[in-house]
Amino acid sequence: MSMFKRVVIIGTGLIGSSLGLALKKRRLAQEVIGLSRLPENALLAKRSGAIDSVGFSLDVCSGADLVILAVPVDKITALAASVAKFIKKRCAVIDVGSTKEDIVLKAGALIPDFLGCHPLAGSEKRGAGNLQEDLFKGSICIITPTPATGKALLKKISALWKKIGARPVILTAKEHDRILAYTSHLPHLTAISLIKTVPEKYLAFGSSGLKDATRVSASDAGLWRGIFMANRNNLLAALKSFRKELKGLEEVLEKKNTKKLEKILDSARRKRGKLK
Amino acid sequence: MSMFKRVVIIGTGLIGSSLGLALKKRRLAQEVIGLSRLPENALLAKRSGAIDSVGFSLDVCSGADLVILAVPVDKITALAASVAKFIKKRCAVIDVGSTKEDIVLKAGALIPDFLGCHPLAGSEKRGAGNLQEDLFKGSICIITPTPATGKALLKKISALWKKIGARPVILTAKEHDRILAYTSHLPHLTAISLIKTVPEKYLAFGSSGLKDATRVSASDAGLWRGIFMANRNNLLAALKSFRKELKGLEEVLEKKNTKKLEKILDSARRKRGKLK
Repeated sequence: MSMFKRVVIIGTGLIGSSLGLALKKRRLAQEVIGLSRLPENALLAKRSGAIDSVGFSLDVCSGADLVILAVPVDKITALAASVAKFIKKRCAVIDVGSTKEDIVLKAGALIPDFLGCHPLAGSEKRGAGNLQEDLFKGSICIITPTPATGKALLKKISALWKKIGARPVILTAKEHDRILAYTSHLPHLTAISLIKTVPEKYLAFGSSGLKDATRVSASDAGLWRGIFMANRNNLLAALKSFRKELKGLEEVLEKKNTKKLEKILDSARRKRGKLK
Repeated sequence: MSMFKRVVIIGTGLIGSSLGLALKKRRLAQEVIGLSRLPENALLAKRSGAIDSVGFSLDVCSGADLVILAVPVDKITALAASVAKFIKKRCAVIDVGSTKEDIVLKAGALIPDFLGCHPLAGSEKRGAGNLQEDLFKGSICIITPTPATGKALLKKISALWKKIGARPVILTAKEHDRILAYTSHLPHLTAISLIKTVPEKYLAFGSSGLKDATRVSASDAGLWRGIFMANRNNLLAALKSFRKELKGLEEVLEKKNTKKLEKILDSARRKRGKLK
């Protein structure tokens, strides 16, 4: 038996369409409807088998038992307010945004059965053209319930993520945003600073080290502007720590302290080894 | 006909052993002898077919027409001085180190037919256990002749790199070091600072973005200590530029200047697109 009758996915980008495909392939929904600001993206998702049909208005949400908000973080709260007008009682609404505190607070106030989710999957590539059925397989999905979240809702959404191969991890929205500032948003910010630092005429000499270090900077600018702004305070705190590490290395170089330099390099190497 | 009669590779790590295998597979040398500070590494290289035999003393260089110094940068000059005592006239000596100015100056003064080389290939993985026959295929090899470099030598070594799939690019040692400070050494330094900044308990949430951004920090500490120290001044200059970019982004976040933030993100995205 399907877990859901009608799932509406709003935003058929990389995450939304990959999620649709995963739901359909595992027969977790009887019907998946996709909506997109860009109709060609929703049509592409349909052709790829990620959704059954393209919805053209939010009123399709009225028949849904699950609505997935898969739009950029700075659009989620306004979208939740619109969706709230159409959904029936007990319809679950989740988002898949990269920041959580503000979204969970605001969308949670508008929709009783709202649950914040953040699958740690994705890529610098965007759009339904890059969808992957197994995008979530083996990845973590952070779920951020509040004291008001119903137990049945939390159980059902956790089961959903498990069925598509992700490992649900429960955190508060506050914890989520603090952690992600270090593990995702700061690396994004340093990648951007790094590619901007390299003189254009030197790019021809960029080897795999530079490519890997800057890969995420190829991501969509609008999407990341929203993430940076939503998690501004945590990101600024992480940046402060990073600048301190940088300053430490600079001083070691200035003082030609080779012994300490090797110690820093070695402790970094060992710590990187713990990143599976 | 082989290009060389006897090639001696000193240092059978990732680069040295991959180079040996590439030479042997393409029959560019009649005999390849490998030497290593770690005999097990040289034996591993022999078992992998990267060298014909393991040499136990530098006097094997006396019969060589090419000696390749494939040891960490801070060991190259001293090694060149030792090798100089054994080689016959007209024996070509090249290194494959990641910095060039100091090495080319000192080794060039000791060995008339010395030529600095830097294949932009490699990985955070080390040792003959990770050797790859095609490591140099499609990569750039920077060659740094001086006004004293003989034309025949430059021609022969350029041909060698071409035959194993690399594209030789000629630069002065000074240019090389300035460029690599930005394209390799700075990304290495920021990767180290980044992994050190992330609190250990958050590492479990590290996704592909963090992994890629910090991959190079898993490299050998001793090797990179040498590279950082040899290219200290250029690296400090690159670091200064990087800190300026970082400061710019910090200010934009502090002032909540979303318009400028998107502009920066977008220009980074476009620049990253030029990195092939």
